[in-house]
Amino acid sequence: MDYKTVTQQVDAVIEASLDGWIDQLARLVAQPSISAQGVGMTECAELVATMLREQDFEAEVMPTEMYPVVYGEGNGRSSRTLLFYLHYDVQPPEPLDLWESPPFTLTRRGDHLFGRGITDDKGHIICRLAALAAVRQVLGELPCRVKFIIEGEEEIGSPRMPAFVAQHKEKLAADACIWEFGSVDHDGRPTQSLGMRGICYVELSVKTAEIDAHSGLGGSIFPNAAWRLVWALNSLKDENERIRIPGFYDNVQPPTTRDLELLDNLPDDSAKLKEMFGLAGYVRGLTGGLEWKKAAVFEPTCTICGLESGYQGPGPKTVLPATARAKVDFRLVPDQTPEEVLTKLRAYLDAQGFTDVEITFLGGGRPARVDPDDPFVRLANETAVEVYGKEPVIEPIIGGSGPNYPFIHELGLPLVSAGIGYPGGRAHAPNENIRIPDLINGIRHTARIILRFGGITP
Amino acid sequence: MDYKTVTQQVDAVIEASLDGWIDQLARLVAQPSISAQGVGMTECAELVATMLREQDFEAEVMPTEMYPVVYGEGNGRSSRTLLFYLHYDVQPPEPLDLWESPPFTLTRRGDHLFGRGITDDKGHIICRLAALAAVRQVLGELPCRVKFIIEGEEEIGSPRMPAFVAQHKEKLAADACIWEFGSVDHDGRPTQSLGMRGICYVELSVKTAEIDAHSGLGGSIFPNAAWRLVWALNSLKDENERIRIPGFYDNVQPPTTRDLELLDNLPDDSAKLKEMFGLAGYVRGLTGGLEWKKAAVFEPTCTICGLESGYQGPGPKTVLPATARAKVDFRLVPDQTPEEVLTKLRAYLDAQGFTDVEITFLGGGRPARVDPDDPFVRLANETAVEVYGKEPVIEPIIGGSGPNYPFIHELGLPLVSAGIGYPGGRAHAPNENIRIPDLINGIRHTARIILRFGGITP
Repeated sequence: MDYKTVTQQVDAVIEASLDGWIDQLARLVAQPSISAQGVGMTECAELVATMLREQDFEAEVMPTEMYPVVYGEGNGRSSRTLLFYLHYDVQPPEPLDLWESPPFTLTRRGDHLFGRGITDDKGHIICRLAALAAVRQVLGELPCRVKFIIEGEEEIGSPRMPAFVAQHKEKLAADACIWEFGSVDHDGRPTQSLGMRGICYVELSVKTAEIDAHSGLGGSIFPNAAWRLVWALNSLKDENERIRIPGFYDNVQPPTTRDLELLDNLPDDSAKLKEMFGLAGYVRGLTGGLEWKKAAVFEPTCTICGLESGYQGPGPKTVLPATARAKVDFRLVPDQTPEEVLTKLRAYLDAQGFTDVEITFLGGGRPARVDPDDPFVRLANETAVEVYGKEPVIEPIIGGSGPNYPFIHELGLPLVSAGIGYPGGRAHAPNENIRIPDLINGIRHTARIILRFGGITP
Repeated sequence: MDYKTVTQQVDAVIEASLDGWIDQLARLVAQPSISAQGVGMTECAELVATMLREQDFEAEVMPTEMYPVVYGEGNGRSSRTLLFYLHYDVQPPEPLDLWESPPFTLTRRGDHLFGRGITDDKGHIICRLAALAAVRQVLGELPCRVKFIIEGEEEIGSPRMPAFVAQHKEKLAADACIWEFGSVDHDGRPTQSLGMRGICYVELSVKTAEIDAHSGLGGSIFPNAAWRLVWALNSLKDENERIRIPGFYDNVQPPTTRDLELLDNLPDDSAKLKEMFGLAGYVRGLTGGLEWKKAAVFEPTCTICGLESGYQGPGPKTVLPATARAKVDFRLVPDQTPEEVLTKLRAYLDAQGFTDVEITFLGGGRPARVDPDDPFVRLANETAVEVYGKEPVIEPIIGGSGPNYPFIHELGLPLVSAGIGYPGGRAHAPNENIRIPDLINGIRHTARIILRFGGITP
């Protein structure tokens, strides 16, 4: 059978089996798996393993210090191996009153399917299984070997993934990897995300006394934890957004000419985002265009995610706080590392006299990117054109973070995105949803990547 | 009758009537009057008026925009008028589980009486009534005219007191005033507080977007409310505690030689406070002594009382906050005013580019002091020696704030403290209490001030 016949038959199987896969998705959504709250995690890992076995894959639930990783594998015609990275954990469903249907009951309204995790990431688990099943049904076997690594801590920062990958390097050995997500943009164009910024998330805390004091008593003589924190934070970044930690920018690699070319081809979302978030404007006078796009993803950040000290209720309370805390998130670009940020941050705070500011590391991961001209990336882009009828939007790196570093640099894999998302999907928010046509296209795209990777090419 | 005989008889009446006055205190404590929560306020104002009438004073409950003021008056032998400033509102009783007996039930354990408001300020209302009753019983009439102003908003900053005093200047006209408090120190010495710092309490708030953003998306391009607030706060005070608002110190009057003499005579509580609050040390290398005492009360402050922005829960959350708020309390020394602070603060923030930082005024009052050599102050000190057998500790000004300004400067009154408190009284905290010997001494001291003010002198 030639490529065209195979893909036509695969598409037909996908169409015919869709309702069955939506039922499978409903089954998966119905099992809560909230990593942040420790709800249903083992049960969901077992369910995912069962679903892999029902598709004739070998599956094992591998314990970690926290939530298990589901590992799966299956043989195919060639010995080339395609790895699927996915996760079975979901964000907490709260606030519950904003859901229009119960979060853990898949609910169809028109062309939309609603439920917690339906796009992030349970829908993608089903997308991969449906694509593999369709390909196998048409070919009688898979055209390549496949492996699955489906973790349970992605929504809490994948803290154990780098060590897990390093520990199971041989078991996870593969030739290419399909990442956990993929989506179309506002114009229905598929997106191809080639990298992610790293992250170093810390809590800065100060304690200046055992108990709060009355501000009339201590105001001019007691150290104040809130002031210490404000001064320490102020020392980290100036009002022009320049991070003041010495050496912070040392390992920043500027975008290449190829990166800038890709950025330039991206749609300019500056006006859309400004409106969506109700911003008066962007920092540093950025107004859109290439400079704005570069700033958005090719620069490291130092973001205060939270501040807490003293009295926060209504009206006045004359208290001098004994403790103060800030959550601070550094986004890192290649080749920065969370380890160097921690070291440089500590040294700088000490040098500035802020030895009283404690740093607690809450999670991190390195930035990592795939070569935009890798053959596997080209394969993913070509198959995207087949399915979507549009050239993909290629993002050389995105602003967010994820555990792609060990896959790219430890396992040496090219990573591509392919999937079922769209901009209205409300991942992490109430009424998380997908559109059925996107689900179908995501399965078709995944199937074509499997086919071509397995040597069935036009 | 000479002064000695009168005071002996007055003391005897106080002794004999003590149990009855403790019953009256129990009656007053049993009526909650939590201004911060709006609980029982009108009921308590009516009860206080009833208790004044039961003592043959005229009393009226005067409405304000919020909680009524109880005004009372009574005639006496001379036309000189003594004004009592008191308040009937109390702090919230929470946290309730830390009370060893119900907060609104006066409970006696050994020599201590427990209950919310027992020292601040219901015990002082009873102290004044008991002293007046004893004096009247011995003399057959009061030796002077008396007036009462018993407000219901002291615990929320007395926001309407300056206007109330200005509006009722003639009605409140008097020759001297006994303030709402008074206490002995750790060594059993009575304290005489001659002034209070003023206060200007503001909330600073920033809003940079309509909704929070993902820190991966907005970290390097979106304005961040928490950062704006940190930078704005940092601009207000440097790490050496110097307030940077131009002109902030213009109207600060340095302590006089007499003030420094009084300060020098005060006990040095620096080691005690350091231990009590678990401080590593004081700001600016202060270690006690006169410099420490001066800094504690004769300098204005800028205290961050609270900070709030973004995510404050456990672990990491990668959010870029749309809003941030700080509570900031400026303590003022003569001749600073809250009005000038507000004006200068706004002008400075604007000049620094922080036009996006909103200032909400949450309350304020001017600093005010009484001349330490005023004859009425001397009278209060001399009678304190009679009762306590010890020279009083004279504080030229204290670090806290209260509505003394309109009494001193609008009504032109000397103010003295006399009362029933002690350092273990836990005002504002669970298990608020007084000691019965302090109650007796407070009543005796108040009675002697009334007698001498009314012309009955040794």
